[in-house]
Amino acid sequence: MRKIIQIAQGERKANLVFKNANIINVFTNEIIKGDVAIEDGRIIGVGEYNGVEEIDLKGKYLAPGFIDSHVHIESSMVTPSEFARAIIPRGTTSIIADPHEIANVKGINGIKYILDESQDLKLDVYLMLPSCIPSTPFENAGAVLEAEELSELIDRDRVLGLGEMMNYPGVINGDEKVLNKLSLAREKMIDGHGPVISENDLNTYIAAGVQTEHECSTIDEMKERLRLGMYIHIREGSAAKNLNELIKVVDKDNLRRCMFCTDDKDPSDLLKDGSINHNIKLAIKEGLDPIDAIKMASLNPAEIYGLKDKGAIAPNYRADLLVIDNLQDFNILQVFKDGKLVAKDYEALFDVTKSDDKNMKNTVNIQNVEKKDLNISLKDGKVNVIELMPHSLITKKAEKIVGEDIIIEDGKFKRGDDILKVAVIERHNKTGNIGLALVEKFGLKNGAIASTVAHDSHNIIVIGDNDEDMLTAVDELERVGGGITLVSDGRVLETLRLSIGGLMSEESLEIVDEQLNKMLEIAYEKLNVNKDIEPFMTLSFIALPVIPDLKITDLGLFNVEEFKFIDLQS
Amino acid sequence: MRKIIQIAQGERKANLVFKNANIINVFTNEIIKGDVAIEDGRIIGVGEYNGVEEIDLKGKYLAPGFIDSHVHIESSMVTPSEFARAIIPRGTTSIIADPHEIANVKGINGIKYILDESQDLKLDVYLMLPSCIPSTPFENAGAVLEAEELSELIDRDRVLGLGEMMNYPGVINGDEKVLNKLSLAREKMIDGHGPVISENDLNTYIAAGVQTEHECSTIDEMKERLRLGMYIHIREGSAAKNLNELIKVVDKDNLRRCMFCTDDKDPSDLLKDGSINHNIKLAIKEGLDPIDAIKMASLNPAEIYGLKDKGAIAPNYRADLLVIDNLQDFNILQVFKDGKLVAKDYEALFDVTKSDDKNMKNTVNIQNVEKKDLNISLKDGKVNVIELMPHSLITKKAEKIVGEDIIIEDGKFKRGDDILKVAVIERHNKTGNIGLALVEKFGLKNGAIASTVAHDSHNIIVIGDNDEDMLTAVDELERVGGGITLVSDGRVLETLRLSIGGLMSEESLEIVDEQLNKMLEIAYEKLNVNKDIEPFMTLSFIALPVIPDLKITDLGLFNVEEFKFIDLQS
Repeated sequence: MRKIIQIAQGERKANLVFKNANIINVFTNEIIKGDVAIEDGRIIGVGEYNGVEEIDLKGKYLAPGFIDSHVHIESSMVTPSEFARAIIPRGTTSIIADPHEIANVKGINGIKYILDESQDLKLDVYLMLPSCIPSTPFENAGAVLEAEELSELIDRDRVLGLGEMMNYPGVINGDEKVLNKLSLAREKMIDGHGPVISENDLNTYIAAGVQTEHECSTIDEMKERLRLGMYIHIREGSAAKNLNELIKVVDKDNLRRCMFCTDDKDPSDLLKDGSINHNIKLAIKEGLDPIDAIKMASLNPAEIYGLKDKGAIAPNYRADLLVIDNLQDFNILQVFKDGKLVAKDYEALFDVTKSDDKNMKNTVNIQNVEKKDLNISLKDGKVNVIELMPHSLITKKAEKIVGEDIIIEDGKFKRGDDILKVAVIERHNKTGNIGLALVEKFGLKNGAIASTVAHDSHNIIVIGDNDEDMLTAVDELERVGGGITLVSDGRVLETLRLSIGGLMSEESLEIVDEQLNKMLEIAYEKLNVNKDIEPFMTLSFIALPVIPDLKITDLGLFNVEEFKFIDLQS
Repeated sequence: MRKIIQIAQGERKANLVFKNANIINVFTNEIIKGDVAIEDGRIIGVGEYNGVEEIDLKGKYLAPGFIDSHVHIESSMVTPSEFARAIIPRGTTSIIADPHEIANVKGINGIKYILDESQDLKLDVYLMLPSCIPSTPFENAGAVLEAEELSELIDRDRVLGLGEMMNYPGVINGDEKVLNKLSLAREKMIDGHGPVISENDLNTYIAAGVQTEHECSTIDEMKERLRLGMYIHIREGSAAKNLNELIKVVDKDNLRRCMFCTDDKDPSDLLKDGSINHNIKLAIKEGLDPIDAIKMASLNPAEIYGLKDKGAIAPNYRADLLVIDNLQDFNILQVFKDGKLVAKDYEALFDVTKSDDKNMKNTVNIQNVEKKDLNISLKDGKVNVIELMPHSLITKKAEKIVGEDIIIEDGKFKRGDDILKVAVIERHNKTGNIGLALVEKFGLKNGAIASTVAHDSHNIIVIGDNDEDMLTAVDELERVGGGITLVSDGRVLETLRLSIGGLMSEESLEIVDEQLNKMLEIAYEKLNVNKDIEPFMTLSFIALPVIPDLKITDLGLFNVEEFKFIDLQS
């Protein structure tokens, strides 16, 4: 403390001083010209200072590092350490992550893996404990996490509370297990995921303890939630893009209740658009005061989540700082984390060491799948088919006619008019569960695609126009321990190995992106996949039984509208 | 929790529902028409609800209860319970108090008394632990509190951190005992009291951990502190009135960093103007958006001090609610604390029970004072005299001439031209210390006034034009165990007994106010006190050696400019 005082007094040189900065002041919305003195990773003084090392910013802008206030690292398909290497150069120096995907595969150990792997990163990683493992009772995940299991981790450093409570019907109906989880996190933050609910249901959700929402998509949804005291994450992700609409609601009065998040962002979008810096740029483009946009990515999430030394440039704050060319182009020239230069011109200047991840490997644990296991018996009449929609994660329930749209052979599905077989194979606990269904408008010909990324339980999902290629694809995923694979004519064309839980690669984001692009091209060009859909993401969401209308899990065909399993034929 | 859910759902009637309210929404700055459902002291839902008891507000306004974010209860001269009875009807339902005065008298036990006495009040009382007991090394208080003593209380419920760190030179110079106190509260809030310091000194003060300031009096002071990340209390008290000036700085961008406080408010002002409701009214008059003014008294201090369930009207917040006629007149018609009606038309609807306060009584512990102890020996030449200024707590150092302005007899001060003798008698630990000085422009004739309220050490201060009456006044204060007394012609004219620590009465605020008014009249009319000064407050501040220019403590005459003791004659 004595050293700090001497430095703040100007009696002793700080380790590092930024000279002649245009300092973005998130407290007063001013640009202040001056120096920033840094020692031991934190800001000591703002004003006139001299340093052992001095960096003359010559009027460039200095912003606090950005905070992604709600993100699933797993959606990047890389490990936390590689994720850090990807987003730090884009200005995100802290994230609040919900390790929901890996917890669906590996339970508590999955969460611990993320905690361990993120312990000594240049990125500060805070966690919200996944609240819904499995996401629904209509599928088998790799684990079931109740309050008892979560209690082990709730008081850990860097754990800020309970992650998105998707089971809002459970909250509203007073499900005991759900309430126990909310009780566990009563003194902490509790994130929500309750779009569509309104009025008394929304009051109930909030009265039960839920404090944030990142699933708003309409102005009315956001306004109602703000009025009732919720904090709003304005999301701009790969699939869900809500910023342009929701930013219209933000004004000077409610600004402090609003933050930015990415939620889910795939490798390509991360590389192309960036992380939270993209939200800021879009918001400025939509007319938001640039300093307000920066506040939503710094001071606001820091205050809301209690990260007391983050989110501003003032004495006692962490020296997580971005050098920016100007507030129009908003190019991030340099990134300093804890006072150390960690990225320049969008390139990380550090290597990462991975934690011990052997527990996260070889997570494909299935019974032997044979051709007969993929048989779909059909009789004459109507068949319920999952119809894909262009550029959407929502599916429709279509009715097709055996003999007209669908050809059967020996009482079993043979083929149809752009109708493919899809199977979800439980892959965590070797139960042998297989759910079978038919999908329209995927377009695939002469092959199969399989993936262990299948929301939210992440069983194997496989689609194909012939059983042999489907089996080959499943075998390939078992062999590599999870990932995404393309098969044609009995031959594996290409595989993206996701050895960590079947969700994350051990490679860099750039390599994963390259491989995915290559596989996309093969899918479209060789396998003839419908170009109005993104095959891997589409596949991964066909298994999520909370988005309308018709979905498939390892337990069968699920009608989301009616919220129950249905048969292929009635 | 199940009951809460049923009520929020509207399936079960809430205990109390306000119908047809104009709800002041501090999240969005809107007035929302609707009902507010309350159960077990907290708000369950806002929208459409029915209750066992329903109160039809017919369009009246509903505001969150106000928070006084920095106040010394002792300045009201009543106990915490009587203070609650006085301010609750004026809309203040929570306070953040610094029991600095009673701690100067009774140390840790004084703080515990406030904690105990405020435990079951209708008012929520949070404490900041006094950081500077004694205030300066230039006087003897009743206790010395270092980090070690304070550590016993820092983690207590309702203790939010460290109170105003007045010893800013100690911080800036790295005084070890001061730094230990700051370390003790590192994870909590630390209030400041560091006006005038600027630039590197201010950076140092903040880097050392100080987070708030309530002593700003100029626009520049406030702006500089906001920029460096400090939270600002805008104060409107009895002596210090900063609102009209500082409110000019508040805008939509920095609003969230600003709060209202009263700091010190005497009985008369509390009864006449009120508490924080007065700050709000003044701010509205100065042009601040009424909802922003309310935010500064509710959501802002609640967020800043981490009072998570306070400061707004939404599910999960405490039902501390005010019914207000309209936002122009701003009359507080009813006050609900934890969902119970506790005041109506500015009258409390509850009685208070006092805690066991026997430890706080009989705090006047002095050696026998004799006439000779009051002798001031003088020789010919100049004498340093404390010159009072009209309507000010600042004094001047005047030089008077023996034989011209001052008459001596047997080498001792006899009388002067409106020059009186003043004595500060150490009254806590019977040290026998007596500081003697001369005061100009007090005006008193034929009598003496004495008080145990003498900032900040609260020794006995006595002023008079003859030693006999001064001794009688001291004897009277010893007899009653502390207070304020008026003496003339050897007879006690009137005494306000302040039996709690010599600072607080056991009577109600109204009775104390009445008695003070009566005594003021006697002071002016019978004792001929200068009408340009308030004699009791003036006396109580003559002993405070941190306000310019010349002061008197039990250790002698103190020159604040030079920051050292001086002799009456050089």
